[in-house]
Amino acid sequence: MRLIALAPLAVAVSRAGGLGFVAAGTDVQDLKNELQQVFDMLDQSPIDGAQTDVLPIGVGFINWGVKLQTVMEAFDDHLPAAAWLFAPEENEDLVEWTQMIRARSTGRTKIWIQIGSVSDALQVARLCHPDVLVIQGADAGGHGLAQGAGIISLLPEVADALNEGGFGDIFLVAAGGVVEGRGTAACLALGADGVVMGTRFLASCEANIAEGYQDDVLRANDGGLNTVRTTVYDQLRGITGWPSRFNGRGIINQSFLDVQNGESHDENKRLYESALRKGDQGWGKYGRLTAYAGAGVGLVKAVKSAPSIVYEVRRDAAKVLSRISRLSSKL
Amino acid sequence: MRLIALAPLAVAVSRAGGLGFVAAGTDVQDLKNELQQVFDMLDQSPIDGAQTDVLPIGVGFINWGVKLQTVMEAFDDHLPAAAWLFAPEENEDLVEWTQMIRARSTGRTKIWIQIGSVSDALQVARLCHPDVLVIQGADAGGHGLAQGAGIISLLPEVADALNEGGFGDIFLVAAGGVVEGRGTAACLALGADGVVMGTRFLASCEANIAEGYQDDVLRANDGGLNTVRTTVYDQLRGITGWPSRFNGRGIINQSFLDVQNGESHDENKRLYESALRKGDQGWGKYGRLTAYAGAGVGLVKAVKSAPSIVYEVRRDAAKVLSRISRLSSKL
Repeated sequence: MRLIALAPLAVAVSRAGGLGFVAAGTDVQDLKNELQQVFDMLDQSPIDGAQTDVLPIGVGFINWGVKLQTVMEAFDDHLPAAAWLFAPEENEDLVEWTQMIRARSTGRTKIWIQIGSVSDALQVARLCHPDVLVIQGADAGGHGLAQGAGIISLLPEVADALNEGGFGDIFLVAAGGVVEGRGTAACLALGADGVVMGTRFLASCEANIAEGYQDDVLRANDGGLNTVRTTVYDQLRGITGWPSRFNGRGIINQSFLDVQNGESHDENKRLYESALRKGDQGWGKYGRLTAYAGAGVGLVKAVKSAPSIVYEVRRDAAKVLSRISRLSSKL
Repeated sequence: MRLIALAPLAVAVSRAGGLGFVAAGTDVQDLKNELQQVFDMLDQSPIDGAQTDVLPIGVGFINWGVKLQTVMEAFDDHLPAAAWLFAPEENEDLVEWTQMIRARSTGRTKIWIQIGSVSDALQVARLCHPDVLVIQGADAGGHGLAQGAGIISLLPEVADALNEGGFGDIFLVAAGGVVEGRGTAACLALGADGVVMGTRFLASCEANIAEGYQDDVLRANDGGLNTVRTTVYDQLRGITGWPSRFNGRGIINQSFLDVQNGESHDENKRLYESALRKGDQGWGKYGRLTAYAGAGVGLVKAVKSAPSIVYEVRRDAAKVLSRISRLSSKL
């Protein structure tokens, strides 16, 4: 949620009892200002009971596109509670990040690392021993492994492999297809300690998102058929840095269909540029602007405030747990 | 599990309190004998409390490859408790099947229909009003939609769409990535009334499966990386009837890798035929024989009897429900 999840969304989520993240992504030049904005918002109106030795929000990074030194400078004035690392060129690159952030924050900034396979989970655990592993299933929107399992297969196998490898102390947070209470409860059943949600917050009042994109999220349903994992959208946007094992899941639009029908990149790019000039009208089923979203997008039906999303998900998950606990005796 | 799940496996699962299925698939010429075998096994040693007006097992069909008339003849002597329909050329083809089976069995043979998208669920509900919809997520092994969502996204959206459409009475059974208690509990959280498992039973004593295939199931892990949805395996096996919206998930082997590396079909087919002559040695990571399996294959670690699989899954799911019910107050 690069450029979409900024200080207002992150603070709103944390204020509601979650942990909000600023999605720095590959754009860290504004991170210092963003963290200052978080600080100012909380200075004006603190969160009761929140930790005060760090900002009670996290920051997400797309590692291949960011210089660690720039991040360290952004952390000069304010430290986040968590740094979420994702998509290094090589997992080994995460070692220096982990060491530097832990040293700079004397361990106060917790290390979250997102992976999408059992082998990456084990390798990252050995290399970095992160505080949290974000286990990203194939239903996730935006970027992730081009080839991956859904959370139902991935999370239990990762949990078992980590336990067997002596890494049972790492917290596991599930991602990919979680948009509401049922998915949250399901991930707890699979063995997750928590969940993260992206797509659901695209339709939040606090997201820094174009109306056309947000409308597309509300419109799209049946995400298995109407979203797709592809590199087409990155190509059109001129984003070339992703390591080849990654692609991104977005809502299928005319750009994607045209590529499938054999249209040249140049013509597609020309039509994309033309759609860009239409602003919000450039999105939609017959539009051409990118709407990254997860396969659970069909469960997102209305724009809500971020706090009400957090409250609802927790309330509904608790209801599900209560409902299914009564099934236990029938099994 | 065509030709793998036959009378012994189906009866063993039903004997343990599940509902076992004979996977007729496209091969119904032996179905009459198979049902007679089920009858004989149960005649010798009945299941306490099982219904007696039908055989307490189901039969699975791959609709595009089967003539309804042949099925009706196979049902002359013995009716199954359920007929599981999957992969018609068009959903409309299921109407006659549903009507004929219901008429022939005066409703005793329940209609199960497997779908993989919200739109198919709604269309099938309107056309056939099946007793059960099997909701197949993208992690499933063997054939399913080439483009689809994982069960975490798919099941809740299907449940909501059916409820809104007035089809809330249809039972929902989750498939795709469910191999043990955690996945089972997760699917109940998502709103399923039950689960079906295929891949787990490939490693059962009662499966009619080559040792090489079974060894491959035990060997494979990290299913997101080491299985793939493809039509390559069908092409090598000379199976040409699947409608184009389907493909099959299998363990990645040398046949698949060679196609990725640009090898011709003819050469690949020649090597496949040569591997066929090696028998069990033809499977494996560097083998060429097809091992269809789901993305949860890494959770299958040992061959067990079908009853012990059923007991363990139910016991472990109950444990999970009990564990997570205690989390409810913390949400």
